[in-house]
Amino acid sequence: MDFEQFFRDRLGDLRAEGRYRVFADLERQAGRFPRARWRERPDAEAREITVWCSNDYLGLGQHPAILRAMQDALLHYGAGAGGTRNISGTTHEHVLLERALADWHGKEAALLFTSGFISNEATLGTLARQLPNAIVYSDAQNHASMIAGIRHSRVEYHIFRHNDAGHLRELLASHDPARPKIVAFESVYSMDGDIAPIAEICDVAEEFGALTYLDEVHAVGMYGKQGAGIAERDGLSHRLTIIEGTMGKAFGLMGGYIAGSAAMVDFIRSFAPGFIFTTALPPVLVAGARASLEILRGASDLRRQHQARAQQLRQSLLAAGLPVMLSESHIVPVRVGNPVACKAISDRLLRQHDIYVQPINYPTVPRGTERLRFTPSPDHDDRMISTATEALRACWREHALPLAS
Amino acid sequence: MDFEQFFRDRLGDLRAEGRYRVFADLERQAGRFPRARWRERPDAEAREITVWCSNDYLGLGQHPAILRAMQDALLHYGAGAGGTRNISGTTHEHVLLERALADWHGKEAALLFTSGFISNEATLGTLARQLPNAIVYSDAQNHASMIAGIRHSRVEYHIFRHNDAGHLRELLASHDPARPKIVAFESVYSMDGDIAPIAEICDVAEEFGALTYLDEVHAVGMYGKQGAGIAERDGLSHRLTIIEGTMGKAFGLMGGYIAGSAAMVDFIRSFAPGFIFTTALPPVLVAGARASLEILRGASDLRRQHQARAQQLRQSLLAAGLPVMLSESHIVPVRVGNPVACKAISDRLLRQHDIYVQPINYPTVPRGTERLRFTPSPDHDDRMISTATEALRACWREHALPLAS
Repeated sequence: MDFEQFFRDRLGDLRAEGRYRVFADLERQAGRFPRARWRERPDAEAREITVWCSNDYLGLGQHPAILRAMQDALLHYGAGAGGTRNISGTTHEHVLLERALADWHGKEAALLFTSGFISNEATLGTLARQLPNAIVYSDAQNHASMIAGIRHSRVEYHIFRHNDAGHLRELLASHDPARPKIVAFESVYSMDGDIAPIAEICDVAEEFGALTYLDEVHAVGMYGKQGAGIAERDGLSHRLTIIEGTMGKAFGLMGGYIAGSAAMVDFIRSFAPGFIFTTALPPVLVAGARASLEILRGASDLRRQHQARAQQLRQSLLAAGLPVMLSESHIVPVRVGNPVACKAISDRLLRQHDIYVQPINYPTVPRGTERLRFTPSPDHDDRMISTATEALRACWREHALPLAS
Repeated sequence: MDFEQFFRDRLGDLRAEGRYRVFADLERQAGRFPRARWRERPDAEAREITVWCSNDYLGLGQHPAILRAMQDALLHYGAGAGGTRNISGTTHEHVLLERALADWHGKEAALLFTSGFISNEATLGTLARQLPNAIVYSDAQNHASMIAGIRHSRVEYHIFRHNDAGHLRELLASHDPARPKIVAFESVYSMDGDIAPIAEICDVAEEFGALTYLDEVHAVGMYGKQGAGIAERDGLSHRLTIIEGTMGKAFGLMGGYIAGSAAMVDFIRSFAPGFIFTTALPPVLVAGARASLEILRGASDLRRQHQARAQQLRQSLLAAGLPVMLSESHIVPVRVGNPVACKAISDRLLRQHDIYVQPINYPTVPRGTERLRFTPSPDHDDRMISTATEALRACWREHALPLAS
């Protein structure tokens, strides 16, 4: 087989569909977020632009206290962890962060992973594989990493309609009560910005004795009095068997974790290949995450500013007649509806208006719902919002796209 | 189902088998490697010990030039990348490191992943799933992450006897010549320290038109004139379709990568869920890896010292009659042969001799081959080697374990 030709053909298919991805080459600048420098080609001159699609939702990636903690850790511990968690890679920083995360979520224990992707894949995969004859119930819009874990386990699984506790109930009721059951869902869905009916899902899960697994990666740091997520905000943390989070978004860093009972965490620690067979997070990141967590616990003001900015952008875009998709969270998606126009508008925004918002195409969202996904932070100011609105309005005109009404 | 009871029971099984893992709580100290501080319990007083099982093989985790590059990056770019590679997470540092890695391996392109685990899982999984009707041929001792990728793809796969090109040939010859074939293997096998016959495996793979995938994570930085691994040392880089490496070991940091043709790398970039749906490595780590790579390219002296130290430890242990397992590399495994004694000796070394070497038990190695795996670095000195030898000899006596002859 001609492998090279196969690779080129498949890439050609992506291009023909208008969904070949070009990564924007950025240079973040601590202290100037959401401004950054962008290069059209690796060797081109850099130009300053405004980033509108970062998952550094609160701008903590440039927080001086976090950078200071990381600098101290770097000088004290050095660069990397030096091994897997089991073979010389567990540092005191890991121990302390796991303790702090557990406390934050009101759980007995927590476990760090190298990414949110791996925490989902490894935890769901391991639970489903190890629990004898398990069935998994998965929300229709669950993230690729949860789907990966579920599929890799090869157990029976059923997909319930998005955020539909009634449909989940129907499915749970139709299967053998004796089989162990896992209900997996998210709190904030990142591409639409809608929020799960956690209480209703817990009601149904408890009725059928199912374990509950909640992905809060787009909520931790941003919701709840102490920022521990939607489950905290709604007073439901104690009803969830497992809460999963990330340090890659509101924390401003990278890495993932789960929190739950001591036995559950110890079980995953002991049996999940994706946890066991990989180098531990460097202490510099873990120390940064500890500093970040400390800030997030007391960041009610920052959370209010964040929501206010999201509301302000939403209103501004709506007032301009742009097709803003309904969202209950800090995420502001604007529907384009086809991959070619979505990419073209994103390119035009970047090249002509110094505004960077990445096109979101299939498979990240369903075909026909291609969109620009804005994630305003507390650092996006009034002027940035009005500039973005005008630029978007101009693009809509140029591309003769329909306005909202 | 009583989930808590299930978790506790399974953990009880591990304890009964003597293979329940206790992570050593370490505090690395930049400038003092391989010395580190160890705590018996999270709140206990720390005590200084010598680490003998780090994968920071060359001690680069404390190299001043790398720490300086990281510090600069931290202050300039901030903490995290702020998104997936596609959605605002590609920084100029990523672009430059990918270019440098490709150049190092003599390949057209390279692609970064959040870990070596993910680079194996995502690349092998994606190739096997996407190539129509593929067959994978996997060395019997391949790492868990390669096995994960192969299994997750659900394609037909065959295991060839460890380092046995003849057996691989038999298997390749027995299948439909038209089907796309992938041969996956490692250069240095980390638990035994033996090295693959890369040329012979390439001969066979080429005869049958198979794609070759070589994991060099325990070799990059340490073998070859410029440190690009065993393939470089043996002048074989051009014969491998894909070379996979890590920044988590000799580089002293974390993260993984693949290098190969531009089309192959672009294909994996475009289709691998484990690459697409995860937050990018923080620029601080990427900048550190670039500095590390620069050092590694010119580190022939360090590589010589490294091999000399490994040889010195091996000779010292052999002279004391200890059952050192044969190894052609920098890895020095000492066989214990049962999990309970292995754990007990490791505990005794740590508590009584201030020597930390983690017990390696099933499933990391086959049952009955439990071992202590020493990874001497250029920073382990004569005194550390003689102290370790004496301590190990004392433990062998205490546990009445057989000597080599």
